[in-house]
Amino acid sequence: TGSRRRRARARSGARSCGLRELEVRVSELGLGYTSDETVLFRYCAGACEAAVRIYDLGLRRLRQRRRVRKERVRAHPCCRPTAYEDEVSFLDVHSRYHTLQELSARECACV
Amino acid sequence: TGSRRRRARARSGARSCGLRELEVRVSELGLGYTSDETVLFRYCAGACEAAVRIYDLGLRRLRQRRRVRKERVRAHPCCRPTAYEDEVSFLDVHSRYHTLQELSARECACV
Repeated sequence: TGSRRRRARARSGARSCGLRELEVRVSELGLGYTSDETVLFRYCAGACEAAVRIYDLGLRRLRQRRRVRKERVRAHPCCRPTAYEDEVSFLDVHSRYHTLQELSARECACV
Repeated sequence: TGSRRRRARARSGARSCGLRELEVRVSELGLGYTSDETVLFRYCAGACEAAVRIYDLGLRRLRQRRRVRKERVRAHPCCRPTAYEDEVSFLDVHSRYHTLQELSARECACV
């Protein structure tokens, strides 16, 4: 299935929705903590073309026909976390210990 | 909680994410069926501000700093179906019976 996934990616030009990871300095997260530590930040990215349902097609058409009005409506699946890491911890420059909940994704899906 | 929800809506100016319903002619769905029947189409719409997590804030900042690159990334919750109606059925103009799966939403959430 690995090669099939690669072929699909070559066709569509985009990797499909999944978990990505990045080692980041806590200060880069912009959450107001002053720390020299790094944490592993996992996030969801990628395409959800394969997850488009008949629901999305119908909704797009109803929006075109103005049957569905200005209200915020999304007629395309979102690549989003469906589970988060319970805790990510680090020390700040004052040696205080901080724990952030739901900072990092644990599972992704096209919802 | 009803009045509290109304106050929140008045503050934010947008209804929060939930199921909406619309009676539509099958032909309006643009799915290629010729039918005079109507079906009940349920969809998800509304705001997800209250569901923004620390994950989203961190991801936005990493994107601003170009630590997360051009790949499709969504740093805001999506109001999307988390369950669909098993079946929606109708007759076409030739009296053929059709059943569509996952046309209509059954549950919505800010994912």
